[in-house]
Amino acid sequence: MTAPLAEQGTLSKERLRLWLRMLRVTRQVEAALREKLRVEFDFTLPRFDVMAALYRDCDGLKMNELSKRLRVSNGNVTGIVDRLADDGLVERIAIEGDRRATLVRLTPDGRDAFTTMAVAHERWVDALLDGVSPEDAHHIGELLHRLPADTGVQRS
Amino acid sequence: MTAPLAEQGTLSKERLRLWLRMLRVTRQVEAALREKLRVEFDFTLPRFDVMAALYRDCDGLKMNELSKRLRVSNGNVTGIVDRLADDGLVERIAIEGDRRATLVRLTPDGRDAFTTMAVAHERWVDALLDGVSPEDAHHIGELLHRLPADTGVQRS
Repeated sequence: MTAPLAEQGTLSKERLRLWLRMLRVTRQVEAALREKLRVEFDFTLPRFDVMAALYRDCDGLKMNELSKRLRVSNGNVTGIVDRLADDGLVERIAIEGDRRATLVRLTPDGRDAFTTMAVAHERWVDALLDGVSPEDAHHIGELLHRLPADTGVQRS
Repeated sequence: MTAPLAEQGTLSKERLRLWLRMLRVTRQVEAALREKLRVEFDFTLPRFDVMAALYRDCDGLKMNELSKRLRVSNGNVTGIVDRLADDGLVERIAIEGDRRATLVRLTPDGRDAFTTMAVAHERWVDALLDGVSPEDAHHIGELLHRLPADTGVQRS
């Protein structure tokens, strides 16, 4: 059903306002988390994101898989993985039969360190979203699950 | 009222899931808008953001005000403003009695260009958030307006 033109204008304005607020809140929460990680663990958000991705795959990930999952360039991920490896938090494993590719995975120390930070991270997020009731969290979560509607990328 | 411990755990997990979805959706929508701006106007998102901030203040903004409003470093803003000035979209105006500071404001061409892009931008956002009903947009907008609850920055 198509809404009358006047209503469509109001709706698109309402969605624009929603988007600008989402952007503002996301940036503020992200900045707060970045600061907490720095102060409490002397850690950066990109390093935390890389470790979170690796934590989910115990067998490790290829660099290009890791890069795709994080939506950042291969070059950026390589630099972060290098520094995590220097700190003994991740390790590179050769893949048999594929000399050009290596797997990256968390070391036992890396898994311990990530678990500690993840518990704190969940607590920080809980405090930052304190105004969100269980019902709202569930309702908005469901809604966001269906977004974005159309990123211009063809779906098969 | 404090919830029992088990419920608190569930609630913080629900808020964490909500946060991760917000982050994912925000990044996807932002990436889609970035791509649209590039393809349709050969323009970048940081340039668009700077012009949006200047559009609201017809009298112009000082560089440090602009930088604070956009939450990016002075150095980054300077580079973007330089390129916008080269393209005739913004102009720098000397402030009487303050030799070190200049105002930046949109030129008439800049206001025209921004208006055209802003109309398209609103249309893109409308399409990207197509799954959001007017009621949801309003409800979530109100909720986000009160977030984040606590960024660790002291409030006066």
